[in-house]
Amino acid sequence: MKKQQRTAALVNETSVRVRFSEVDSMRVVWHGEYIRYFEDGREEFGRRFAGIGYADIARSGYLAPVVDAHLQYKSPLRVNDTAIIETRYIDSEAAKICFEYTIRRADDGEVVATGSTMQVFVDSDYELILLQPDFFAAWRKKWIK
Amino acid sequence: MKKQQRTAALVNETSVRVRFSEVDSMRVVWHGEYIRYFEDGREEFGRRFAGIGYADIARSGYLAPVVDAHLQYKSPLRVNDTAIIETRYIDSEAAKICFEYTIRRADDGEVVATGSTMQVFVDSDYELILLQPDFFAAWRKKWIK
Amino acid sequence: MKKQQRTAALVNETSVRVRFSEVDSMRVVWHGEYIRYFEDGREEFGRRFAGIGYADIARSGYLAPVVDAHLQYKSPLRVNDTAIIETRYIDSEAAKICFEYTIRRADDGEVVATGSTMQVFVDSDYELILLQPDFFAAWRKKWIK
Amino acid sequence: MKKQQRTAALVNETSVRVRFSEVDSMRVVWHGEYIRYFEDGREEFGRRFAGIGYADIARSGYLAPVVDAHLQYKSPLRVNDTAIIETRYIDSEAAKICFEYTIRRADDGEVVATGSTMQVFVDSDYELILLQPDFFAAWRKKWIK
Repeated sequence: MKKQQRTAALVNETSVRVRFSEVDSMRVVWHGEYIRYFEDGREEFGRRFAGIGYADIARSGYLAPVVDAHLQYKSPLRVNDTAIIETRYIDSEAAKICFEYTIRRADDGEVVATGSTMQVFVDSDYELILLQPDFFAAWRKKWIK
Repeated sequence: MKKQQRTAALVNETSVRVRFSEVDSMRVVWHGEYIRYFEDGREEFGRRFAGIGYADIARSGYLAPVVDAHLQYKSPLRVNDTAIIETRYIDSEAAKICFEYTIRRADDGEVVATGSTMQVFVDSDYELILLQPDFFAAWRKKWIK
Repeated sequence: MKKQQRTAALVNETSVRVRFSEVDSMRVVWHGEYIRYFEDGREEFGRRFAGIGYADIARSGYLAPVVDAHLQYKSPLRVNDTAIIETRYIDSEAAKICFEYTIRRADDGEVVATGSTMQVFVDSDYELILLQPDFFAAWRKKWIK
Repeated sequence: MKKQQRTAALVNETSVRVRFSEVDSMRVVWHGEYIRYFEDGREEFGRRFAGIGYADIARSGYLAPVVDAHLQYKSPLRVNDTAIIETRYIDSEAAKICFEYTIRRADDGEVVATGSTMQVFVDSDYELILLQPDFFAAWRKKWIK
């Protein structure tokens, strides 16, 4: 119960302004850019809840490649829109890092996209790590339990 | 039965060579690039089974934005690898265009990623079209039924 | 003399944080990304000295494509570096928009890249406009003269 | 004299098809994409005149970052256009790799962009190498002299 309450707090918000180069010939943000927005959210999450950004993971001797990404598009973003990216950590006992995302248009709060990513741990030879690495267990102990 | 057999034939293969700029600091293709490979596959599909590329749809007065994309990553691609993108059209009676994708490394045939996309039809005001537009019904009649 | 002094003030600074996806396999920002940083600087300049962002130009019925871009790279940027983009408007009587850029690493102030861009005006048929459009003359009158 | 004649032959052509995601809201290829086309041309050049692609240079223990890039835009490319990239090696005695580029629209042969890049050699600590590395001297001996 207590754990779930604290887990519920592992949410971060960051904002990005749509760049001209992200908009396609339909005058809306190209759908592929959202996977970058998710990554922006994840990296900002890793700065706030320090220890699971790409650089932190690399320092620990592991890599954490994304193995699953799911994106749902609800409404278009246009040039000069500001997008608010909500990044929620979804905890599990597995050797995985899971996030859910909600992207809203800053102006009106409308949800423009939702999605999720799952990362696993691999060593420097890209061999899958089946147990949570120590640095990740320590991170969970600090922020979750 | 017959329809399903012909549907089964709506598959196209195209290849892309991994660019230096697509590879990240882990020396593998950045996961966001695969959404571009899916689009490459879809556009090449639209050239072979003429009539449902972005340009064709635009000419018909509609847009067909991607509303759902799902990507599963199995194995990394590296610089100078050639990827074979298999794009399969998944038919339905709804006003949707659905594709499934399998990306293989050309060298060894290993599956490096799979995924799917769903597109809907909107008019020039981005209002959702609930029935299959005539051009799409004609395309299905030509290629599916 | 006076004009030159006021022109000298047409400088804007904005900052961007290097994204993981912008870093190449040499673990430095891929050189192509700097053209995007220049554009970030130019767009932010257009918000501060209102009236010559892409959206403003489009509203006026013109386009202002970049016809020349020059980039000099001095030192690499790495993941999580913050870059300060200085964007300087270089005035002329011609129907052109010229900018110079200096990008510095925020941490130590080192210049990492410099460059310039030149834009011309075209109409909606992409025909070159040889005289300064009214909206641009008005913008110059407001900010330069 | 003889050298210059053989140098003149160090030209390669490759083609790329414009991707939907490369086109901006002006319905033309975004100007930043051309730096990628130059890189496509350079890599294809490196495969034909084997030994100076990114991978070759990395294997030799050096890096060859681009330190100067200049792009001139003449005419827009649009979605589904095919671009022919001509990549010309410009020889010098310095520890530099210089290329010039001409990009033509395949349909009508019109020049859409020209440009140049200069690369220098650095070691793994990003320290500048002032003399031509052995592998590069060997490459020049094979192809130029």
